[in-house]
Amino acid sequence: MSADLIDKVLNGDPRSIARAITTVENGVDGSVELMKAIFSKTGKALVIGITGAPGAGKSSLVDKLALHYKNHGERVGIICVDPTSPFSGGAILGDRIRMATLGLDKNVFIRSMATRGNLGGLSRATVDAVSILDAAGFDKVIVETVGVGQDEVEIVKAADVSVVVLVPGMGDDIQAIKAGIMEIGDVFVINKADREGVLRTQKELEALLSLAHRPDFWNPPIVKTIATENKGIEDLSTAIESYRAFQSEGEASLTRRQAIARWRLTELLRERLLRNILSRNGTEDTLDRLALEIAEKRTDVYTAAEELLKTQL
Amino acid sequence: MSADLIDKVLNGDPRSIARAITTVENGVDGSVELMKAIFSKTGKALVIGITGAPGAGKSSLVDKLALHYKNHGERVGIICVDPTSPFSGGAILGDRIRMATLGLDKNVFIRSMATRGNLGGLSRATVDAVSILDAAGFDKVIVETVGVGQDEVEIVKAADVSVVVLVPGMGDDIQAIKAGIMEIGDVFVINKADREGVLRTQKELEALLSLAHRPDFWNPPIVKTIATENKGIEDLSTAIESYRAFQSEGEASLTRRQAIARWRLTELLRERLLRNILSRNGTEDTLDRLALEIAEKRTDVYTAAEELLKTQL
Repeated sequence: MSADLIDKVLNGDPRSIARAITTVENGVDGSVELMKAIFSKTGKALVIGITGAPGAGKSSLVDKLALHYKNHGERVGIICVDPTSPFSGGAILGDRIRMATLGLDKNVFIRSMATRGNLGGLSRATVDAVSILDAAGFDKVIVETVGVGQDEVEIVKAADVSVVVLVPGMGDDIQAIKAGIMEIGDVFVINKADREGVLRTQKELEALLSLAHRPDFWNPPIVKTIATENKGIEDLSTAIESYRAFQSEGEASLTRRQAIARWRLTELLRERLLRNILSRNGTEDTLDRLALEIAEKRTDVYTAAEELLKTQL
Repeated sequence: MSADLIDKVLNGDPRSIARAITTVENGVDGSVELMKAIFSKTGKALVIGITGAPGAGKSSLVDKLALHYKNHGERVGIICVDPTSPFSGGAILGDRIRMATLGLDKNVFIRSMATRGNLGGLSRATVDAVSILDAAGFDKVIVETVGVGQDEVEIVKAADVSVVVLVPGMGDDIQAIKAGIMEIGDVFVINKADREGVLRTQKELEALLSLAHRPDFWNPPIVKTIATENKGIEDLSTAIESYRAFQSEGEASLTRRQAIARWRLTELLRERLLRNILSRNGTEDTLDRLALEIAEKRTDVYTAAEELLKTQL
């Protein structure tokens, strides 16, 4: 990563930003230098994490929220985490369609993070990409997740404000997910609020929220939106701002940032340790051989792991 | 893990099986001994992975499929992966309700895997739990995922037969997920097949499948079900059996098992390497200190990781 490219990133050049994100996505050596170089320029953007069940209309909501910010003269970056899509082709096409809607200019940047190699590191790469957009001077960085899994929950938790999107009248599985992501929501959205069952979903949500005990005593607001009709977006922006204001007052903010830092550090360690061992001469061959032995039931995975650790460490 | 407990697991004692799964879930030392001891008894069960969008009715489908097998004199184990729920309380309650539906006897076992510590290892623990049920003599082991993320996709891929559940007429996000999990489905289910839009979903699915090129040239069947009315379950069971029969003929089976073994080995390594470093004296304190320094912006996560690796390795 040349100093010139880093300068261009800091000046907000879209192509350089895209290259920088590819660098952290691939986890190549230049990424360490890059992340260290931009570090001092981060911390200004408001990072908004948005998650929720598939079909809840997150993409429309994110697009409308981004447009809202853009119309208020702010620069907005969007990172879309789609771990279920192993190929980036579809994601890139999707980005282009969304770029066309959002307006192709320097004030909006959108990027999907789809690939995850056998080293893991999607969470790490996503949070690094957020830092890049932050350093590049975007006022708001929105992280949107398509999947609903542990990694995605962690990514959204790492934002300054976490928004959970629900939709009226879905099945039992949604209730299960609701319970799981309950504690991460700083703001809740009931999207598609023109649908039947809004009141019921709201009541259920209020009941669940009244049972939750947040360490910071924040009472998460519930916002109703119809993203496709651009309704409720202003309310959502206000709700997000109210949590940001609340958070910047208290001690809770440092505690939260420390927890996020600990998670980022652990994720990075996990990836580094595996990378170290896999990059050694012969490890890949040994892995292949042991995998075959396990497949043929000549050994078990635990014995194989011990053998690998013994010979390679 | 005492030899006595291992014997009880192999004899199918439910309480011992539950204890054994807790052992692998916590990743405590006894789990290695346990997994090595049961290894030679595994490989008999048919492992069925079931995934799909939230709200698709996976739980009902799994329950009805399990009852179908039970009514045919088979013993069925169910592992429900719910990584979005950090607390097991709700999951345990859910298991009890489902146990009541399925019948409380030795022939059905159900267990939710919900927790994931900072070491990761949910995928590893889930696949270990499957091996335990296999060794305990269950004829069918069904792995059901609630979340839809990369980890969950990997877990379902590790089954002998992967079933992807869709539902008619959902939004664009579902289409995105569809594309992502397309390649993992050996059998596709359109559940809630009494709903509007079945034909459209089926046509879309067929179009997507015709574009996919499976290395084993298998043509995944599409089964329509209404799980709540117990309709289509026999067809689903036949479709699963047909893939099992197809798979056991070809070379593809060994290749698939080797790929699964390689993934399991890498996951185990990832967890072991992190555990090794975290278990060293002082690492946890160093992590806390560095996390605070990052939160206070006195250092960045990459520099911190390098410091940790330098002092602890």
